[in-house]
Amino acid sequence: MDLLKKRILEDGRAIGNNIIKVDEFLNHQVDPVLMNEIGKEFKKLFSDRDITKILTIEASGIAIGAFVALHFGVPLVFAKKAKSLNIDDDVYSTSVYSFTKRTDYDVKVSRKYLSAEDNILIVDDFLANGRAALGLVDIVSQAGASLEGIGIVIEKGFQEGGKLLRDKGFRVESLAVINHMGNGEIEFN
Amino acid sequence: MDLLKKRILEDGRAIGNNIIKVDEFLNHQVDPVLMNEIGKEFKKLFSDRDITKILTIEASGIAIGAFVALHFGVPLVFAKKAKSLNIDDDVYSTSVYSFTKRTDYDVKVSRKYLSAEDNILIVDDFLANGRAALGLVDIVSQAGASLEGIGIVIEKGFQEGGKLLRDKGFRVESLAVINHMGNGEIEFN
Repeated sequence: MDLLKKRILEDGRAIGNNIIKVDEFLNHQVDPVLMNEIGKEFKKLFSDRDITKILTIEASGIAIGAFVALHFGVPLVFAKKAKSLNIDDDVYSTSVYSFTKRTDYDVKVSRKYLSAEDNILIVDDFLANGRAALGLVDIVSQAGASLEGIGIVIEKGFQEGGKLLRDKGFRVESLAVINHMGNGEIEFN
Repeated sequence: MDLLKKRILEDGRAIGNNIIKVDEFLNHQVDPVLMNEIGKEFKKLFSDRDITKILTIEASGIAIGAFVALHFGVPLVFAKKAKSLNIDDDVYSTSVYSFTKRTDYDVKVSRKYLSAEDNILIVDDFLANGRAALGLVDIVSQAGASLEGIGIVIEKGFQEGGKLLRDKGFRVESLAVINHMGNGEIEFN
């Protein structure tokens, strides 16, 4: 997606050869016009699938997921990371290790919002080691729902997540794949 | 906003005389069509103000904020709740007490995304005791930005937050004000 790649080059910041910060338009400040275009693009890429729900994980996935959901005309469900007194006990849950925060966290989705009748498109902002995506895949599996695909905004092609998910047979579509970072430079696939 | 009130009556769940759960379309599962209408409604209500940024707080505010931002054609900034290794040190921060989680949490916004030139519209899903909104007001004040108004999706009119904010002179627009809950019934203003 050229519009996204252009924006990453303009406003993304490469730190070392591993961290890319896109707080300018995706992770802290959000450009709603770009999010809307991202929603359209995922609808185009997965237009052959009969999607009934979009699944993402809080917090950075929500803005993306909401626009993807709008273009598919289906609800978004966002998995919750922390135990909250306000979430139902009747949940699908799984544990995910965060390299960023260096700790495991629980991911939960109420059983009310995913069922065996659903055809799910998972979306997320980043794909690096694949831990968050695998957590969501596990939740889809617990629900007995059909996983139609995984839509990623920015894939770090030099980390193992993409290969891991594709080797398991999942259809992964990434709008921008970064193959190399270093000296503040970002190179796409 | 009649569409919203209708949806609250259909899908909201009143628990006791204090808790209202709208996980069906707002806080866990998100109806993007309704969010888009909410975005339009806030644009209409604050069309007299020259808004440059929408400010909300993760996670439930993000979907709402993104659609409000789309209709204003300005960026959304979402305040972060937890300390993350990936957020800049150079932040505005404040402490907020959560009655839901029964603990204080820090709220942070990078200084890069709010400045004295900004005219801010704060949006959030709920207004109850007003603590989260006051935290965001504090951050706007630290930035030296102009606070143009506060847009709330669901106000609990029987709690003190609305009066507190309006008594301070802030313009608060709530799309649905609940005046009373009890025996599973919800009554609007």
